[in-house]
Amino acid sequence: MNGQTAGTVNIELINTGSELMLGFVLNSHQAWLCRQLADLGYPVTRQSAVHDSGAAIQQIVGEALGRADLVITTGGLGPTADDLTRDVVATLVRRPLHEDAAVLTRIEGFFAARNRPMPARAGIQALVPEGAIVLPNTHGTAPGLVLDLNPNPCRQDGKAALLVMLPGPPRELRPMFSEQIVPMLQGRFRLQAPFACRVLKTTGIPESLLEDKIAGSLASLGDAGLGIGYCARIGEVDVRLAAQGANAPQIVEEAEQIVRSILGRSIFGLNRDELEGVLVRWLTERGQTLALAESCTGGYIAHRLTNVPGASAVFLCGLITYSNQAKQRFLGVKTETLSAQGAVSEPTAREMAEGARSRAGADFALAVTGIAGPTGGTPGKPVGTVYIALATGQETIVERYLNPYDRETFKHVTSQQALELLRQNLLRQKNASAP
Amino acid sequence: MNGQTAGTVNIELINTGSELMLGFVLNSHQAWLCRQLADLGYPVTRQSAVHDSGAAIQQIVGEALGRADLVITTGGLGPTADDLTRDVVATLVRRPLHEDAAVLTRIEGFFAARNRPMPARAGIQALVPEGAIVLPNTHGTAPGLVLDLNPNPCRQDGKAALLVMLPGPPRELRPMFSEQIVPMLQGRFRLQAPFACRVLKTTGIPESLLEDKIAGSLASLGDAGLGIGYCARIGEVDVRLAAQGANAPQIVEEAEQIVRSILGRSIFGLNRDELEGVLVRWLTERGQTLALAESCTGGYIAHRLTNVPGASAVFLCGLITYSNQAKQRFLGVKTETLSAQGAVSEPTAREMAEGARSRAGADFALAVTGIAGPTGGTPGKPVGTVYIALATGQETIVERYLNPYDRETFKHVTSQQALELLRQNLLRQKNASAP
Repeated sequence: MNGQTAGTVNIELINTGSELMLGFVLNSHQAWLCRQLADLGYPVTRQSAVHDSGAAIQQIVGEALGRADLVITTGGLGPTADDLTRDVVATLVRRPLHEDAAVLTRIEGFFAARNRPMPARAGIQALVPEGAIVLPNTHGTAPGLVLDLNPNPCRQDGKAALLVMLPGPPRELRPMFSEQIVPMLQGRFRLQAPFACRVLKTTGIPESLLEDKIAGSLASLGDAGLGIGYCARIGEVDVRLAAQGANAPQIVEEAEQIVRSILGRSIFGLNRDELEGVLVRWLTERGQTLALAESCTGGYIAHRLTNVPGASAVFLCGLITYSNQAKQRFLGVKTETLSAQGAVSEPTAREMAEGARSRAGADFALAVTGIAGPTGGTPGKPVGTVYIALATGQETIVERYLNPYDRETFKHVTSQQALELLRQNLLRQKNASAP
Repeated sequence: MNGQTAGTVNIELINTGSELMLGFVLNSHQAWLCRQLADLGYPVTRQSAVHDSGAAIQQIVGEALGRADLVITTGGLGPTADDLTRDVVATLVRRPLHEDAAVLTRIEGFFAARNRPMPARAGIQALVPEGAIVLPNTHGTAPGLVLDLNPNPCRQDGKAALLVMLPGPPRELRPMFSEQIVPMLQGRFRLQAPFACRVLKTTGIPESLLEDKIAGSLASLGDAGLGIGYCARIGEVDVRLAAQGANAPQIVEEAEQIVRSILGRSIFGLNRDELEGVLVRWLTERGQTLALAESCTGGYIAHRLTNVPGASAVFLCGLITYSNQAKQRFLGVKTETLSAQGAVSEPTAREMAEGARSRAGADFALAVTGIAGPTGGTPGKPVGTVYIALATGQETIVERYLNPYDRETFKHVTSQQALELLRQNLLRQKNASAP
């Protein structure tokens, strides 16, 4: 992927945790923090991760402080024996730890409010390196710590660096970062020129074709400083438009208009929009309801929709009819249809959608039936074959796709196609341009 | 998390890609490769990521080669302008690129087999650094590359290092790693002593309590070289037992027996087992079937079960009854029950499970109804309240839980509790010890 706007601040992110290094968990801190920072105009230059080893943490933090203007660490501030960051950093930057009475009081209050005895080790979290700014933790016990290293003992030239230490649990780290760190960074590292960034979310066009369609028209803005990034995700491509400089907002605005004029209704949202969130919003605004009949997606479309807070206002029910008998019993699919055409067929998809719509009393129903694999394919209907139907009351539209992917990718791509079929229909009804 | 067994091989993993550094995607390569390597006795020492920038890639690969015995890079081998790893590495280690005729033929064949014209740029992937071992890519066009750097130009002492460059797409990287890289590593970096590792997967016991229960009994094995790691995931805790040395297999075996004797049926599987996979396997073995009635989990339990290949043999249907009307219509929940007790209540959960079981003709039915939030709570039934019912034909068990988490965590924790309720019941029926 191309397209980042180079930052003027050299930022390194260090994630500590043996659970990361043993591959037990995905590094969600990296994605979250990198996204937050990039969208503010502070792209992270380098990210690293090491085990919960004092020597490894000390070495990597020291190296990063030798290069970067800002170093952010995650984890290692808690009360257990493998929480080592506070200690090794204090040694590394020669700022001895002392007990902070206000932090200790807050930790005691945390346990008192929950009627739980305070474990002896919890008090360790009140130890603070000399001169550190203490960031209250509104969702846990370990405070965040900020050290303004000026001079910076990890550089021969002593050039200043800011070291930010964040606690590991996401629900502690995220509000602390957004509420306390972001304003601090924006004050400390003023952008030399305005930064603007906008992500257009598209579906239905492969990455290479999408780039062919828009790159030429954006070339002159590229000369003016526009950075274009394409990120192909499963079933969608994000187009990131970013610029830095006096005219950055206008450049990004103009680029967005050009992309919209070319891609039109293939753009379903902006920045962090998700297709399911857009649909719940639109249906809520119109007071319309939806039912689902899922076979091969196995409840995944319902899962996506019900991840959206407020989905209950528009989503009435989902019928996951894996067996033929369930298709007949709960959706009224005809025995003849199943025996003559098969469960994976245009007429079955149609009857599933119409049955779900009428039985649920919904305005719309989506139905999917297909062969997720790895087995079950035939020459005429290979693995990956899927029929998607939308019943609207006025009509029932059925589309056939071939999604020959592994099981989870199959589900995601198919769910994207189904949600997009509904979105395009709502757009036509609206007879309006894309939102 | 503690508990890694220190590796004798210094391994660094470098992931390149601006999509990582802008936080567009999670670094699934890191988790996957680190897990594979750790379970073979080769824990990764350090992981880093940088943008698709030639200077940044060259710097970080050079630094890693200056420290490590093995450096693995992912990405940057494709045909587009932001695929820079091959070029900058060739420069860095002074191994000029030349066109490899066999690779070119394979790339041409890849396009011919798909009846697609070969883009001019695709040929770039046939360029290979002098002396590189070429790893055929069975799922794409860019081959993997291995350089045995002896002497290693990035170290003053010239100490040898192996540099492995893998293509970015997961479905190309994963088989290439498992089939071609693993045997190469095991030949090149022989473990000085046998390594053994086993992960016991548990559910239903919080991490701190679990550690209290087993740590004391494992202490003497710790002295003998056992490393114990705990990884708390949502709704489950993994216990990793690892050892290196002549007696490693026996130490891990003995530790497993101790843990099993203490935790018993809280252990649901080994290594990469998932709760849903265990249930599909058990039900398949017994020839029994399952139906679901989900309200607050919104199809997520069905989604998990249908991620398991072969689920269609045991999973008949799922009824996602978000509205009261759907609960009545599809499950036969009584109007009086809903009006007198509410949709989130013990009797509603019971009627949902019994209705799903009888209407689907299944051996078992699980039902969940609760308040996912963020709104909808009352003093008597706060946000997070959930009732889970299991209907078996002989009886219907209903349990009440409080899961006051964000929406997606709520769904996952609740789905774990529901699947675990079924698992415990199957275990009791079996009247046997945990598998």
